[in-house]
Amino acid sequence: MRLLAFQDSTGRALGVSADGLSFHPIAALAPDLPTAIETLLGLDGALDRLARLLAAAGPGRPLKDVTLLPFLGRSNAFWALALNFKTHIAETGLSTSLDYPHLFLRTAASYVGSGEPILAPPETIAKAFDYEGELGVVIGKAGRHIPVERALEHVAGYTIVNEGSVREYQMHNRQFGLGKNFEASGSYGPWMVTPDEFGDPTRHSLETRLNGVVRQRSGLDDLLVGVAETVAYLSQGYRLRPGDMIAMGTPGALPPSEDDAEGRDLSRQYGPFPTPGLVHMRPGDLVEIEISGLGILSNPVVADQPAGYRID
Amino acid sequence: MRLLAFQDSTGRALGVSADGLSFHPIAALAPDLPTAIETLLGLDGALDRLARLLAAAGPGRPLKDVTLLPFLGRSNAFWALALNFKTHIAETGLSTSLDYPHLFLRTAASYVGSGEPILAPPETIAKAFDYEGELGVVIGKAGRHIPVERALEHVAGYTIVNEGSVREYQMHNRQFGLGKNFEASGSYGPWMVTPDEFGDPTRHSLETRLNGVVRQRSGLDDLLVGVAETVAYLSQGYRLRPGDMIAMGTPGALPPSEDDAEGRDLSRQYGPFPTPGLVHMRPGDLVEIEISGLGILSNPVVADQPAGYRID
Repeated sequence: MRLLAFQDSTGRALGVSADGLSFHPIAALAPDLPTAIETLLGLDGALDRLARLLAAAGPGRPLKDVTLLPFLGRSNAFWALALNFKTHIAETGLSTSLDYPHLFLRTAASYVGSGEPILAPPETIAKAFDYEGELGVVIGKAGRHIPVERALEHVAGYTIVNEGSVREYQMHNRQFGLGKNFEASGSYGPWMVTPDEFGDPTRHSLETRLNGVVRQRSGLDDLLVGVAETVAYLSQGYRLRPGDMIAMGTPGALPPSEDDAEGRDLSRQYGPFPTPGLVHMRPGDLVEIEISGLGILSNPVVADQPAGYRID
Repeated sequence: MRLLAFQDSTGRALGVSADGLSFHPIAALAPDLPTAIETLLGLDGALDRLARLLAAAGPGRPLKDVTLLPFLGRSNAFWALALNFKTHIAETGLSTSLDYPHLFLRTAASYVGSGEPILAPPETIAKAFDYEGELGVVIGKAGRHIPVERALEHVAGYTIVNEGSVREYQMHNRQFGLGKNFEASGSYGPWMVTPDEFGDPTRHSLETRLNGVVRQRSGLDDLLVGVAETVAYLSQGYRLRPGDMIAMGTPGALPPSEDDAEGRDLSRQYGPFPTPGLVHMRPGDLVEIEISGLGILSNPVVADQPAGYRID
């Protein structure tokens, strides 16, 4: 089952879909269920009940007729892993611990939903604006000191993340800080797929396409620190909450083909990690991230407003 | 004027105080004002109006009769600066850029209010649990690309922050991650003081006391990157929002006196930065941070629950 948020006539609403083509608003299927995603995900048995109701429901509304929104709320924690693929470690030359996940936080404001524009900074601010295709893990059941072998019981589902990064700002200092938190610089979605359907994450693969050209491709079996290990580690200090998300890190760039002039031209790379096959996102681009079993996260890249003082 | 949150019979409510001794609930002074702190701080003229109403109001309720709560909401962004005092850079031996603020994020869950217990991790998890007395800057007016010379117009007020840190976890990897985000490991409060009353932050000073012994003491004129510069920098990528907070970094340890056996005993320091005068927080301690013009942020240190699996 897919859990999603969409723009309703009255605002933001949650829905469920079996096939990613049509959906039912949760308010129509089960009016008694909570409308806040955190409460819904934390409610024991709620997703199972929705799956049964969905299976018994008639034809739904076409998903193409609605605008998808980020399905998590502003108050959730968005954890992310740096340098969790060997190929990305190699291309950046950055170091990481082999014993512990390399964690940092993003704000909710740094993410939009699938189909919504992600914002490229004005060129006067930064030029090295990079996609990062990642698996996103959504927490269901709250927990502390979760044993690795029970960690996946705390996962409500999986999604796709574009952990858009502004490299110049990311390298301004040792903590990534602002470079990973530009306004609407990343995205997640299009929905969350429940684990019964997605299965073992390590059996899936990821592909990032910029304007149709494949720029990242990797199996998810190549993670340095896995999903269960990361959940268990975080829970040693932080109470994982329903609706928290963990973005599991991005693979390196796919080597460019012979006729890929753009991917081979390092002179057009402004960031600290010039890498064959890496191409920055620019206004007018379309970035798509596909994970087998999850679907496609697709975002147009649009120029942010010019770098003038605004109080809006 | 002081803006605060307190435990009301019906839940969390906002109040204002002129003297830090008595207060009026905002709902009583101005029932038409928004009850959400983000909306209130973003409403032009709301604080000025509250100050006028407060000046004309009769005697208020004693503050000692209520429980203070964190005055910001869960959906705000909590930015923090690392290594922003020369004395702290010297004691850690860590490096920082001299050109850019060293920024990272904390979750709302890592903070409690003044008077509430902060939680020391079980000793089986970590022992180097450290106070960090800091100035907290609360954003009022939203903004992007804010010029340095207009940055302070976006500050709604100032508060005190204990940026409690679990050093072992902080040093597990290059991003601080979980080490700065243990559950209820830090605090802020007791309230926010408006800039008309607090004045120029650099003219104030900070003192951290553990069980009555002064452990940090510094003027706030010693910041590597100042308040206005940090606000301006963040706004280059992130839209500062009403109720966002920026913790401005902590000074180094005060050298211990001759008769301070605990402060001179480096064998009792478990962290990566053994420093004379640094003493870890342990259950049973009382930690107080005082900033001139802001008051005292005071928290008992209480042992977190043992490191057993919990799903609460």
